[in-house]
Amino acid sequence: MPTLRLDVLAIGNAIVDVLARAEDDFLVSHGMAKGSMALIDEAQAETLYGAMGPGTEISGGSAANTAAGIASLGARAGFIGKVKADTLGTVFGHDIRAAGVAYVTPEAKEGPATARCLIMVTADGERTMNTYLGAAQNLTVDDIDAAMVESAAVTYLEGYLWDPPAAKEAFLLAAKLAHGAGRKVALTLSDAFCVDRYRAEFLDLVKTGTVDILFCNEAELKSLYETGDFDTALVQLRRDAKEAVVTRSEKGASFVTPDALVSVPAFPVERVVDTTGAGDLFAAGFLAGHAQGKDPATSLRIGALAAGEIISQMGARPQRKLLDLAREAGLVS
Amino acid sequence: MPTLRLDVLAIGNAIVDVLARAEDDFLVSHGMAKGSMALIDEAQAETLYGAMGPGTEISGGSAANTAAGIASLGARAGFIGKVKADTLGTVFGHDIRAAGVAYVTPEAKEGPATARCLIMVTADGERTMNTYLGAAQNLTVDDIDAAMVESAAVTYLEGYLWDPPAAKEAFLLAAKLAHGAGRKVALTLSDAFCVDRYRAEFLDLVKTGTVDILFCNEAELKSLYETGDFDTALVQLRRDAKEAVVTRSEKGASFVTPDALVSVPAFPVERVVDTTGAGDLFAAGFLAGHAQGKDPATSLRIGALAAGEIISQMGARPQRKLLDLAREAGLVS
Repeated sequence: MPTLRLDVLAIGNAIVDVLARAEDDFLVSHGMAKGSMALIDEAQAETLYGAMGPGTEISGGSAANTAAGIASLGARAGFIGKVKADTLGTVFGHDIRAAGVAYVTPEAKEGPATARCLIMVTADGERTMNTYLGAAQNLTVDDIDAAMVESAAVTYLEGYLWDPPAAKEAFLLAAKLAHGAGRKVALTLSDAFCVDRYRAEFLDLVKTGTVDILFCNEAELKSLYETGDFDTALVQLRRDAKEAVVTRSEKGASFVTPDALVSVPAFPVERVVDTTGAGDLFAAGFLAGHAQGKDPATSLRIGALAAGEIISQMGARPQRKLLDLAREAGLVS
Repeated sequence: MPTLRLDVLAIGNAIVDVLARAEDDFLVSHGMAKGSMALIDEAQAETLYGAMGPGTEISGGSAANTAAGIASLGARAGFIGKVKADTLGTVFGHDIRAAGVAYVTPEAKEGPATARCLIMVTADGERTMNTYLGAAQNLTVDDIDAAMVESAAVTYLEGYLWDPPAAKEAFLLAAKLAHGAGRKVALTLSDAFCVDRYRAEFLDLVKTGTVDILFCNEAELKSLYETGDFDTALVQLRRDAKEAVVTRSEKGASFVTPDALVSVPAFPVERVVDTTGAGDLFAAGFLAGHAQGKDPATSLRIGALAAGEIISQMGARPQRKLLDLAREAGLVS
């Protein structure tokens, strides 16, 4: 088994977020489903950008946010994802490296521009996302650094990787390499609509054991099992998944296996500013705890703390050092 | 006299800010004077960007921030400033137009990239700025839209325009056109080091009446008159300037003329997050009040409110509608 150099290697779409405040009416008039992620093409991205309010550009990407969160918690994180050699690609690369994440995926020299996600943040702090995948579509098996995968305790993959056609193969190769090296594979279901697009494949990944730890929220779980009843879906999840983390916003979160169920409450938050990255940072906290050998309840609590912090600020990358906050809360020493 | 279409036309460097949290040690080791603005070249900008933490990109530029603030207060604002036709130029143009500001300056097709300001925000909320002027250096007399200047009640200029060599002439042309149309000219001294670079010229602008309303903070005023004593500087200011607004951070602000002095306290702020744009937004509030015929005390109070709001958030462009806040505070109807 290769030397363990990383606690978590995250693989996902490399995206820069453009966040703007919006009224609920704006979502309605542009046909957006509040709280979800929709894919848009370049022309749609230009039209929507023209219509939206003044923006703030912050690096994003679901798995990339998780990697940044893990590093902020003092664990060793890496990231694989594709940008183009353009201004936003430079911004993405700078930000993730400056966050302390190992990132060496070569930039595309041609083809579509670096991916961006146009995010409307409504007064309730909810975010509604529109993603132009751009260069992220060009992630292929060639970008999977085998040594990096084999040296990471957990390889964490985002369900969104099912959207760019070639990335799916890269995903499966990474999972195979990880298991070949005796490592764990984790997957987040990403979004209820994403689950709707790839339900059978995601279920197969879980049932066949390609995925060791599944991350999902309540809506994604219900979508996976096509039921409106949370408890029904949870029973099925515990039958299918080796280990799973289910987040339920203000209702807290649970870690489940076929034999065990551990739940923790949500972390108290003074004011919800922007929910972008809540799930990503919950996963970061749980995985950082897991990497440091914490029990599931403590790992969940670190997840709840990281999620609580990220929804108290704009953007999905933590502005304050999460390790300091976790220490203040007595969750790590 | 042409029809009045704008309350305020702001002219300044068109800049995108890159904000990152930094420790005080970082400032010391990079030789930065805390709270000030330094000019850097492209190579220095690249080196510093490589060394600084994960960033947030938000449109900035001192006079541009003021224009955005004026529009957010429901007054009619325009802006003149130069970007290149590149990604950050597109971001700058989108953001200022989306803020409701009239902006038609043609983008440079070649030459240096759109200007950026690398801003280190320390734990106390203080910001330290490093500006790469880039395309902003190419603002010339050709960019001064005479009809726009002549149709604006006030033309507001930033002292930073003295840095790009050609912009100085554009500044003087705008002032001449404004006065020719019977309008007012305002100037902000921008930064104590900027005053140090151009003291004699700035004093001349004030003494000759090229500037009708001068904006400055305590440090800039002391630098202008080369004294460590605020009261001494204030006496000289009231001798030289027709009208002036002097801001003193938590000590409040004053409006002075040779015959009058009106002071207001600072607006109470719960937590100072980032002081970037405090002076710019104070000017926005004062000018918006002035445009709506408010008395100096009320205009100062609107300035204090706008400044208080901007230092409670990251970046120098207001995320909340300032008009709503001013109404809540009973300052406008």
